[in-house]
Amino acid sequence: MTADKFTGYAALQPIDSPTLESYSFDPRPLEEDEVEIRVQACGICGSDIHHLTNGWRRATYPLIPGHEFIGHITAVGDKVTEHKVGDRVGVSPVSRSCNECEQCTTQHRQLCPSKVTTYNSKYKGQMTYGGYADRVRVQSTWAIRVPENISSEEGAPLLCAGVTTYLPFKHQNIGEQHSVGVVGIGGLGHLAIQWARAKNCKKVLAFSSSDAKREEAIKLGASEFATLGESDNYQQSVDYLFVCGSGKSTNWDALLGLIKLRGTLVLLDIPEQPVPFSAPAFVYKHISIIGSYVGSSEDLHEMLEFASKTGVRPWIDRVGNSLEEVNRGVGIIMNGKAHYRVVICGEGRQ
Amino acid sequence: MTADKFTGYAALQPIDSPTLESYSFDPRPLEEDEVEIRVQACGICGSDIHHLTNGWRRATYPLIPGHEFIGHITAVGDKVTEHKVGDRVGVSPVSRSCNECEQCTTQHRQLCPSKVTTYNSKYKGQMTYGGYADRVRVQSTWAIRVPENISSEEGAPLLCAGVTTYLPFKHQNIGEQHSVGVVGIGGLGHLAIQWARAKNCKKVLAFSSSDAKREEAIKLGASEFATLGESDNYQQSVDYLFVCGSGKSTNWDALLGLIKLRGTLVLLDIPEQPVPFSAPAFVYKHISIIGSYVGSSEDLHEMLEFASKTGVRPWIDRVGNSLEEVNRGVGIIMNGKAHYRVVICGEGRQ
Repeated sequence: MTADKFTGYAALQPIDSPTLESYSFDPRPLEEDEVEIRVQACGICGSDIHHLTNGWRRATYPLIPGHEFIGHITAVGDKVTEHKVGDRVGVSPVSRSCNECEQCTTQHRQLCPSKVTTYNSKYKGQMTYGGYADRVRVQSTWAIRVPENISSEEGAPLLCAGVTTYLPFKHQNIGEQHSVGVVGIGGLGHLAIQWARAKNCKKVLAFSSSDAKREEAIKLGASEFATLGESDNYQQSVDYLFVCGSGKSTNWDALLGLIKLRGTLVLLDIPEQPVPFSAPAFVYKHISIIGSYVGSSEDLHEMLEFASKTGVRPWIDRVGNSLEEVNRGVGIIMNGKAHYRVVICGEGRQ
Repeated sequence: MTADKFTGYAALQPIDSPTLESYSFDPRPLEEDEVEIRVQACGICGSDIHHLTNGWRRATYPLIPGHEFIGHITAVGDKVTEHKVGDRVGVSPVSRSCNECEQCTTQHRQLCPSKVTTYNSKYKGQMTYGGYADRVRVQSTWAIRVPENISSEEGAPLLCAGVTTYLPFKHQNIGEQHSVGVVGIGGLGHLAIQWARAKNCKKVLAFSSSDAKREEAIKLGASEFATLGESDNYQQSVDYLFVCGSGKSTNWDALLGLIKLRGTLVLLDIPEQPVPFSAPAFVYKHISIIGSYVGSSEDLHEMLEFASKTGVRPWIDRVGNSLEEVNRGVGIIMNGKAHYRVVICGEGRQ
């Protein structure tokens, strides 16, 4: 490995078990508006698995995942003014935008039609590689300063899972006057419960397929817990229902049944198969169904500040930075055993 | 037939062809808060067919449809103050609400959990029968005065198709700054186009499965027309997409593709089968999907006033009030040949 190569852990083709391999590559030149970050902690996101297995059918290989990470800046481009070498910053699933279009100028940069995603995207003809690599170069706009009281390891998952669950609270202005339900107590759901509590929502109902997570849901801040089998007792009980997990057996009509008249289903899980909504179940109740995709750089700043003040933190399982450890971490997520986010900890890749 | 019996046209069991039969019944006593209306014109709505065939699987037989009609008041209950015998009023799909609950007191009466629908519902133990009967008794709140310049025949379809398509314009505040797309140029769609034009929307795009309705769509007020096959040329072209018709071959992802970032799909059609939405197609674009169900009494007043001022009127095919004529009308709707609403014209049923 020569000094100017970057190294990461890649799937060389679609995989169905944790078999990432070591992979070195020549980085493209540092752009004048970019910073280079040495990754210190990188979350393993559920989306990484969809891409590693090509479940969403839009992955390009070799694929180096990692779109929620934190590290120190090791180089800055000539036109970067807001960051300097040594700053600790976080990176989310989007790492470049035009900063001039309608979306960028209205604080919705993550929807910029010219956006570049942190991995599995192309910029200037070269694939982008994520935080399973030792270093990553991103547009300085998308390097977000991390508050001091948030460690890199706990902070990393906030950059994707955190902002994804936070954004609907911001955009829908969800607060004290609202009841919030969270379906699926996992990587996303355990953060949604915490945001709802931190926003002082009047009720926070946690729903899970089994009883196993009752105690933890309450510890996370839920005011009540119910299994989905008991959900008949919770008809029309919430203003906002965050669907953070779903599967082939999900009864979408039953989920819609949990929502009050004129309430909202917030779909944060992105199932690989189409979601079959029965029109009568939401049309007759004036229910809205909304999606949310990560956040803008402004949203990321706001979310980190709010987490800093309120103490919202992901619960994490740590794995090391060796290839073996990273494959172990990927396996934890693949098997649905994360508790609740897995974070690759340590600088450098072998 | 004795003088105190009401007479209508009913399906005695689920039907799959236009085979309604004459049916007489004893009306329940006129309540003190009710008015009795002699039906002068009654629209044949697509929902009537779903109920006649039991496609929505919640019909009770005998079933007398009809939930968009206009006629003169022939009797008023003791406590009715806002109407008198002889007034011309219209009735929509909802004809009773509690008028005290959270929905009723916030101008969303049509969502009242205790609402009674105009037909295929029960009140005080007896089925409700709609405007395919000669007379109907409804709560006075739900008898809506009809502006003089709207004829009963043209006005009838406004009470369901009209308010259903109008309500999203009101609730979403759709106006000059918005582009509106309408999919399906039929009973609902031809009114949605007219509302969009009357609201001065900056673009009104009409989409249909075939080219046959191009000219009429333009006449109705569309600024552009495209077949759904050409829809690739209209990627991200509208802020609001009104889906007024769909079928088994509908490509929902293609429809979502027509909507701008952060836009809204307004689902007005209520397919009998679940609608398969691909989560990525709307989550990554922050698209909302909303339903809308008829309107409150306040909405109905507002909609009729707006139609009165702006000239929005349904295009109608008239059928007579004999059993044969009504069956002919039902056949027109069943065969998708309406142009664009069919209205039963004339008082009395045989």
